[in-house]
Amino acid sequence: MSGWVVVAGLGPGKETLVTPEVTAAVDQATDIVGYIPYVARIAPREGLTLHASDNRVELDRARHALEMARDGKRVVIVSSGDPGVFAMASALFEAYEAHPEFAEIEIRILPGITAMLAAAAAAGAPLGHDFCAINLSDNLKPFELVEHRLRHAARGDFAMAFYNPRSKSRPHQFTRVLEVLREECEPERLILFARAVSTPEQRINTVTLAEATPEMADMRTVVLVGNSTTRRVGPWVYTPRGVAP
Amino acid sequence: MSGWVVVAGLGPGKETLVTPEVTAAVDQATDIVGYIPYVARIAPREGLTLHASDNRVELDRARHALEMARDGKRVVIVSSGDPGVFAMASALFEAYEAHPEFAEIEIRILPGITAMLAAAAAAGAPLGHDFCAINLSDNLKPFELVEHRLRHAARGDFAMAFYNPRSKSRPHQFTRVLEVLREECEPERLILFARAVSTPEQRINTVTLAEATPEMADMRTVVLVGNSTTRRVGPWVYTPRGVAP
Repeated sequence: MSGWVVVAGLGPGKETLVTPEVTAAVDQATDIVGYIPYVARIAPREGLTLHASDNRVELDRARHALEMARDGKRVVIVSSGDPGVFAMASALFEAYEAHPEFAEIEIRILPGITAMLAAAAAAGAPLGHDFCAINLSDNLKPFELVEHRLRHAARGDFAMAFYNPRSKSRPHQFTRVLEVLREECEPERLILFARAVSTPEQRINTVTLAEATPEMADMRTVVLVGNSTTRRVGPWVYTPRGVAP
Repeated sequence: MSGWVVVAGLGPGKETLVTPEVTAAVDQATDIVGYIPYVARIAPREGLTLHASDNRVELDRARHALEMARDGKRVVIVSSGDPGVFAMASALFEAYEAHPEFAEIEIRILPGITAMLAAAAAAGAPLGHDFCAINLSDNLKPFELVEHRLRHAARGDFAMAFYNPRSKSRPHQFTRVLEVLREECEPERLILFARAVSTPEQRINTVTLAEATPEMADMRTVVLVGNSTTRRVGPWVYTPRGVAP
């Protein structure tokens, strides 16, 4: 039997946000590979081996998955959210490119509900017009590039979603992000801190840019910033579809 | 029994990309509201009324859904893709804001797989780094704003996804988009025309910016543009996770 690798998005946490396509792939798998908390979401069963690994070993994990597929295994690499949004799909292709011996392996990428869209849905429709997604982590890019993109996103009046906004090892960077936003946007701009979206611990805190503090974000938070027209209506936050011509 | 309105994302077309959460809402509905081809995806059954309407009547449709909910109906407004990405969620909140008599109605927005993420997954991982989503339609905004955002997205070296790239009534505008991209980006920049994603008619055409022509896009196409590091490996297109610090 020939092996394959699937990179599957498990969505933000709630089981009813996992697509049937992903569930079917997991049901057919012989091996599950991924970061510990994502592998923990897969129910153990006879004939299925779970390979949980730590964060920041994405390339090793991807190579391991390709090796197992070459040996005939049916491997699912599990990502949270969507695998193509700051997750495992790019790491898989980096490993695939670096190792030509894997060229013939069957690969499929299965999309999932990414955190910013689950957060937007829970809050209303803050990303209802043109928007950007930016990974604030500087593990793999210089922070200057983050700041450069942030300014262009603000000057283009895009709504924004920030992934990985803040970690214990670099708490000052999100402080800097708020400073840049305050230079570029008006103080009334709405900013949403959406934590643990779609789980029982979900909490969405909507404030103005003037009220925002770095402590409102942690690594389980996705941060959404409205554009200049984003507003509140009752308990909701939304961005209208149009602007006056 | 008290009514409610759900705005549900049906995903890009394939039934196995509809989340169980959305399927459950449709199963509980008394009324389905939406654009004709999306309502056509819902199986008729006893006790379920289908209200299909034409395009460009989003506000009427939203108000109709709120009126039915006020009268005790359980209404699902169906969107393709994700309802918060250039779809019905913002229109619902516009109607909700305009009509205070609907303030007490229960509303839920259920996320879905949006076209750009399904297209990205089918192609590899072209949106694997920071990216923007831009609606190229000028129905509700001046085309100058599209061009302004396009230049900022290019100068920020974002990957990009374009929704509604081209219609029969304004074919010249996508021509202009390609001109702007050629002013801002190198000729080797990769651009993907993904048509009818996830359906049996899916077709993904990857070319360089120099090779791209306006005729490669129509209204069933989502267009993805890589950033400066996006590359091909075998049959795949992906954007690496990092840039050299």
